[in-house]
Amino acid sequence: MKKPLALIFSAFALVCAADVHAADPLPSWNDTAPKKAITAFVERVTKPGSPDFVPGPERIAVFDNDGTLWAEQPMYVQVRFALDRVKALAPQYPEWKTKPPFSKLLSTPKEETVAVSEQELMEIVMAAHAGMTTEEFSKIVSDWIATAKHPKTGKLYTEMVYQPMLELLAYLRANGFKTFIVSGGGIEFMRPWAEKVYGIPPEQVIGSSGKLKFVMVGDKPVLMKLPEINFIDDKAGKPVGIQQHIGRRPLAAFGNSDGDLEMLQWTTAGNGARFALIVHHTDAEREWAYDRTSHIGKLDKGLDEAKTKGWTVVSMKEDWKTVFPPPR
Amino acid sequence: MKKPLALIFSAFALVCAADVHAADPLPSWNDTAPKKAITAFVERVTKPGSPDFVPGPERIAVFDNDGTLWAEQPMYVQVRFALDRVKALAPQYPEWKTKPPFSKLLSTPKEETVAVSEQELMEIVMAAHAGMTTEEFSKIVSDWIATAKHPKTGKLYTEMVYQPMLELLAYLRANGFKTFIVSGGGIEFMRPWAEKVYGIPPEQVIGSSGKLKFVMVGDKPVLMKLPEINFIDDKAGKPVGIQQHIGRRPLAAFGNSDGDLEMLQWTTAGNGARFALIVHHTDAEREWAYDRTSHIGKLDKGLDEAKTKGWTVVSMKEDWKTVFPPPR
Repeated sequence: MKKPLALIFSAFALVCAADVHAADPLPSWNDTAPKKAITAFVERVTKPGSPDFVPGPERIAVFDNDGTLWAEQPMYVQVRFALDRVKALAPQYPEWKTKPPFSKLLSTPKEETVAVSEQELMEIVMAAHAGMTTEEFSKIVSDWIATAKHPKTGKLYTEMVYQPMLELLAYLRANGFKTFIVSGGGIEFMRPWAEKVYGIPPEQVIGSSGKLKFVMVGDKPVLMKLPEINFIDDKAGKPVGIQQHIGRRPLAAFGNSDGDLEMLQWTTAGNGARFALIVHHTDAEREWAYDRTSHIGKLDKGLDEAKTKGWTVVSMKEDWKTVFPPPR
Repeated sequence: MKKPLALIFSAFALVCAADVHAADPLPSWNDTAPKKAITAFVERVTKPGSPDFVPGPERIAVFDNDGTLWAEQPMYVQVRFALDRVKALAPQYPEWKTKPPFSKLLSTPKEETVAVSEQELMEIVMAAHAGMTTEEFSKIVSDWIATAKHPKTGKLYTEMVYQPMLELLAYLRANGFKTFIVSGGGIEFMRPWAEKVYGIPPEQVIGSSGKLKFVMVGDKPVLMKLPEINFIDDKAGKPVGIQQHIGRRPLAAFGNSDGDLEMLQWTTAGNGARFALIVHHTDAEREWAYDRTSHIGKLDKGLDEAKTKGWTVVSMKEDWKTVFPPPR
């Protein structure tokens, strides 16, 4: 028995090995520098015996969402959601017809972009996101994202995720990384769909949040969303959010704007091998082209710092074979 | 080849099956009602085809720490840590000699218990836990917990964890559960040792926290611990902490005091099969006996609600074969 069994197992091992090497885990990436940098880093930290080997539980990778995992132009998806909520709620608030910023929104056609200040946006988000339970809000988000479409492409927002980044998430997970979202967007806005779309479970989503209150409604406990800011997970808030939620410095961080700068700084300041990558929106044809002067997703300091610190910069136009997943 | 191979695999399968059934995953639990309730619940939610089957990613179990996973008498371990810190820092703060509550602590012998109000405790904790980076604090905690000993038993605090609960954590994880700590204790106080002692990684530790600030020291980013409360993860704060960190309602919750009541209520109010368990400290000989009138770990409402709601109550004395792990 010994010999035939050994032969079978050897053959099996050969097939497996061949499979692993044959399949490109990042098929939507061109064979340019960023792809090579990613795979070289992953090999460095995962290969047993490598001087930079990192045990599985410490392999933490953090990803910004807007502009890094999905499109953010011409307006953050969550802002579009908040506007739709304001329109849906308007009949209950007749005073909004004349009260800015609500009046401004209500008089703008759906397909047009509305310019609102940060302060106004906060008012809108508070009105659209609070005064209900976490479960009610989650259902509203789920229902909205199932049908809401991008004003320019007509695609579902969840179809405007970046195929190369989906492959990257899967590749990292296959190499023992735990993948987290660390976004300025609302934590409760992302959780209802992040698992299905990105394979990232709710407990690995970090974002901005409002305060919650535990309340008994009869004998049923609920968590009410209060119209009060709890945490802003942006810029210098990102390393804070990472520490509060993860408690471990990431090995690798992925962003696209100056809002991610501190997250990349914090990640790469750790000991041992670290990796930072910036998605540079250079593809006006397949997506959008914007950086130093953009109102949304401004990337200015990050581009400079990437150069001096040797961070990987992905040019969407040059480095990605495809941008969005093929239609299903 | 076909027949011998099949035979080998069958034999192997038999050995595996026998192994699984032979080994008791909870050997430190007596064969009383709580053990049966635990294993029956786990079978109910993990058996494919069961009407109460829950997919792996939704199997969330939350554990209080003080009094549930380790001993909390005669004083929370973290309070002892804070007192030791105050003593260590005292030479830098000569004014503490005459300034309460510091003066009170500094004049109490090490082995004695100090009675401090909640307000005083907060002052002490802020003085002992803030004004340094998260990494410095983590190192201080690690150094302290490596040698600090319980005033009564002379054991390391990490040896005063409950063996039956260690087995329960491992049993749940073996059944696809993700185990979290949800404690009123400090998140940054638990994380440095929770992975080694409980097998729970930092990102699955939820606790009370102080505010953090991202600061550049030269070109090195650090996170400074500020003397300001960020979040109190106790009582009605526990479901809030669970939602903020996990974003999913737990299937099972484990506590020991009225500080855990809202966590148990929130958990068991979910749809489908849910499980709540209270560790009742009834063993004055092997541990401590306390409940309705205790200053620490008061368990009063919880005992009543457990009865009306059918939650599992563990009597340490009756239901646990051993309390602490055997000396190594």
